[in-house]
Amino acid sequence: MELIKSVAEMAELGRKWRAENKRVGLVPTMGYLHEGHLELAKQAVAENDLTVISIFVNPIQFGANEDLDVYPRDLEGDLAKAESVGVKYAFAPEAADMYPTGFATTMDVAGVTQTLCGASRKGHFQGVCVVLSKLFNLVQPYRAYFGQKDGQQLAVVRKLAQDLNMPVEICGVPIVREADGLAKSSRNVYLDEECRKQALVLSQSLQVAKRLYDEGERDAGLIKAAVQAHIETAPLAQIEYVELVDAVTMQPVLKPEKPAMLALAVRFKTTRLIDNIILG
Amino acid sequence: MELIKSVAEMAELGRKWRAENKRVGLVPTMGYLHEGHLELAKQAVAENDLTVISIFVNPIQFGANEDLDVYPRDLEGDLAKAESVGVKYAFAPEAADMYPTGFATTMDVAGVTQTLCGASRKGHFQGVCVVLSKLFNLVQPYRAYFGQKDGQQLAVVRKLAQDLNMPVEICGVPIVREADGLAKSSRNVYLDEECRKQALVLSQSLQVAKRLYDEGERDAGLIKAAVQAHIETAPLAQIEYVELVDAVTMQPVLKPEKPAMLALAVRFKTTRLIDNIILG
Repeated sequence: MELIKSVAEMAELGRKWRAENKRVGLVPTMGYLHEGHLELAKQAVAENDLTVISIFVNPIQFGANEDLDVYPRDLEGDLAKAESVGVKYAFAPEAADMYPTGFATTMDVAGVTQTLCGASRKGHFQGVCVVLSKLFNLVQPYRAYFGQKDGQQLAVVRKLAQDLNMPVEICGVPIVREADGLAKSSRNVYLDEECRKQALVLSQSLQVAKRLYDEGERDAGLIKAAVQAHIETAPLAQIEYVELVDAVTMQPVLKPEKPAMLALAVRFKTTRLIDNIILG
Repeated sequence: MELIKSVAEMAELGRKWRAENKRVGLVPTMGYLHEGHLELAKQAVAENDLTVISIFVNPIQFGANEDLDVYPRDLEGDLAKAESVGVKYAFAPEAADMYPTGFATTMDVAGVTQTLCGASRKGHFQGVCVVLSKLFNLVQPYRAYFGQKDGQQLAVVRKLAQDLNMPVEICGVPIVREADGLAKSSRNVYLDEECRKQALVLSQSLQVAKRLYDEGERDAGLIKAAVQAHIETAPLAQIEYVELVDAVTMQPVLKPEKPAMLALAVRFKTTRLIDNIILG
């Protein structure tokens, strides 16, 4: 496992691999790796000549009142886990190397960034677009891998790559869950025992939606109300949103005809969890 | 000379050249080529394995009241000129292929885009950033060539490429002038005989600035006043701006210590001309 810490060194390696016509897989992460990340890494290792995992808690995608400072970190553990699934390169830059004084570039993808998490986390997806543009330019990957867990992020990066003709294939990978259904997330470590137990309503509520959809229900209001009612059986759950959106545009739909995403964000005490399911 | 009209075809060629490890030079233009453009093309041909000239009047860098519809076009003439200096590929896409319905991505580089032409042409450099990002991703050039004539554009693309770690070398090429000093520009065809004659004050006024600077003058206000006074000797000249800015940041300077750019934009009847000189 080679650890690259400098942006200049990463750029040089990217250029070298390009000159050697290597097909590079990139797995962009914020570290504190769990099996969801490792699933991305395994797929990247299987499909490319070599795989780079980036480990970078990107400051510009966090809001002022968010958990940047306490976001869990474990670089040594991450390197061991990534190596165990065949990843050969980890890129873990410093924030000051990624965003030196005078950094001035901003990006946005209208529409797809504005709903769901984009509505409550102002600037979040704009920061995601910038860091992914940088990572793509540095690593020059042939494919980049993203979890369906962050369903809106996947939709944003697909649209960004399409609009800007980025020479990279964006690969979405299904959500990995705990045995009891909770979606794997680095933020699950924040949950105390009580919250951890009650957080099960999230994945269960998505199954409620799926059952209704499979039975033919197409009224978004009814589906969302059933999901919401199930979540509310957990006394600690504070719903931020439950929404049914088009799976590509992330815009709310009244009657799903094309594939739709039932997405939710719910707080348990101070921990904000997201989950989603594709319907159709 | 191979003419590529489709975005998908350009992307495929870019991927092919990359796999063959070809060093590609890119000369982005809006067409109606003059000797300034050909100077860029010659340098690109000399320094790279192959050269692509892009010819695209980028609608999103024009304001509502600007000259998009009447911007001069001559694709056949352009192809012949580019071919005459050794360019083998021309990329001339349709606007609807570059910006299909639903296109949603925006970019900005704060600071450097806000002064000079950026102050009066709202959205101009933001549109330049988007189109150049697309062209770089499609062609995957090793080097891209820009004229010093559009000095602020060159500063913007340098900063954009630096901020986003774009794997391309940005090459600036000195201004090419007519025998009498007028900077070559596609917009010079708009000038009637009277305007063409009076427009000479622009390059002359830059020489006034240079003389003062070379003599040791470092008061920006004095230098600008002398330039302005010379331009005002032409009755048809309507000054939009005369400014002395840092050559990298494009921010106004009071006393030039690092290299500075004396830049001006002046209207002659309906034709807006720009010119500049680097001091120091």
